[in-house]
Amino acid sequence: MSLKLITSTQNPLVKQILVLKEKSRERRKSGLFVIEGQRELQLAVQANYKVEKVLFYPELISEASVNNLVDGNVEYIEISKEVFQKLAHRDTTEGLIALAQSKSHELANLDFSNDHPLILIAEAPEKPGNIGALLRTADAANVDAVIIANPKSDLYNPNIIRSSVGCVFTNNIVMGSTEDILNYLKDQNINIYCAALKASEAYHKQDFKQASAIVVGTEATGLTEEWLNNSTKNIIIPMQGKIDSMNVSVASGILIFEAKRQRNFN
Amino acid sequence: MSLKLITSTQNPLVKQILVLKEKSRERRKSGLFVIEGQRELQLAVQANYKVEKVLFYPELISEASVNNLVDGNVEYIEISKEVFQKLAHRDTTEGLIALAQSKSHELANLDFSNDHPLILIAEAPEKPGNIGALLRTADAANVDAVIIANPKSDLYNPNIIRSSVGCVFTNNIVMGSTEDILNYLKDQNINIYCAALKASEAYHKQDFKQASAIVVGTEATGLTEEWLNNSTKNIIIPMQGKIDSMNVSVASGILIFEAKRQRNFN
Repeated sequence: MSLKLITSTQNPLVKQILVLKEKSRERRKSGLFVIEGQRELQLAVQANYKVEKVLFYPELISEASVNNLVDGNVEYIEISKEVFQKLAHRDTTEGLIALAQSKSHELANLDFSNDHPLILIAEAPEKPGNIGALLRTADAANVDAVIIANPKSDLYNPNIIRSSVGCVFTNNIVMGSTEDILNYLKDQNINIYCAALKASEAYHKQDFKQASAIVVGTEATGLTEEWLNNSTKNIIIPMQGKIDSMNVSVASGILIFEAKRQRNFN
Repeated sequence: MSLKLITSTQNPLVKQILVLKEKSRERRKSGLFVIEGQRELQLAVQANYKVEKVLFYPELISEASVNNLVDGNVEYIEISKEVFQKLAHRDTTEGLIALAQSKSHELANLDFSNDHPLILIAEAPEKPGNIGALLRTADAANVDAVIIANPKSDLYNPNIIRSSVGCVFTNNIVMGSTEDILNYLKDQNINIYCAALKASEAYHKQDFKQASAIVVGTEATGLTEEWLNNSTKNIIIPMQGKIDSMNVSVASGILIFEAKRQRNFN
């Protein structure tokens, strides 16, 4: 196989990748995004993401290894050290940068395989690190869906991909407006449990065995009234410390795994 | 009251503060550390930390407000904008930087007020962000103690103080070698539950109502054999995702709050 080789950091593809990493607008416009790292690429491929190009730096990863990662109609491109250093975001890139097509994350895509789904909903989450940790928790719990209400960013931000260690690909994620999501949940008879610092119902007294959505807001401001006023119940994790505050991904983990415990991890 | 005023970034106190923020060796040698932010200072004062000096930048915080934060024999020092910008680590410094005496965190300090304490133990945690999140969880759960085994850093690293949002002051924290801690726990008949990815006992089947220590390792390598071989039980959070991985502070939150749930938050 004759491989294309890129040695100039001024190459149009190199410039395109840099822009796609930086700008969500470009990602939306082109429907493309950038994947770095072997594990991340593997998870994306397993999740049926369509990979268009794989750039690799042969000092760090061999052509054979790259070939094993992706099947099908993919263009493989060798890059020079200079180009690699220009493109690689981090140490764990492992010599590999891929261009893939993003998926649609519309609410209409939701289709549950059981009649008592467990769903994690985050309203307008901001920090990529928190989104990543939420997605890791959602993956570990194998929730039926993650819904992002009024998203502040797209999913394919490199920091989200990285902090989720690829769980951005393994989860069933949809996005929508709070109004549309609320309507959907009510239509489907899914109980809505909103996590709130001022709620009166303790989380561990609820029955999460029924179809349940657990909804969390941001650490700074919590959930909006729109959620709190339309929930089945607003629930609280009793806190007994000096500070009434918990990391949002920790709180989500506690709530989701209480639901899993009640369901006996089935 | 006649206040000292520092306007030069070359002032010895300014230099001392910069060194104390940077170097754990200097913190250990001098027994001093730096607190930034009003809430953090308040929590430290409430926890009986001895504050020696408070530097404030009057554009951001008034002398009266500063006076209200700290009682007792404290030196107040006004600083210029230039000095403040040199010293302030972050936006949330709120015009206030204090020098305080560190506390002793020896195992021998432990003294429980009840006979079934709940303890969170972290072995050699590395990332300040993870340590901070653990301490927030520990505060929220009001655990009886946090123990750090074979610590990699001191507690007074500015990034730990910040990411713990001051919970480094509100918790009862001790440190020691794994060997000393294991001996202590066994002497006190405290059950040792080690979180492990390969364990066979599910966490939610355990009885955490007895005196319990929940022990977590690093995300990268988990707990050492020394802990795993000396535990009462090694426990697992059942994971059903594509990736066998969870954020260590999320996992700790799930385990600690399962114990709290079993204890009915008493």
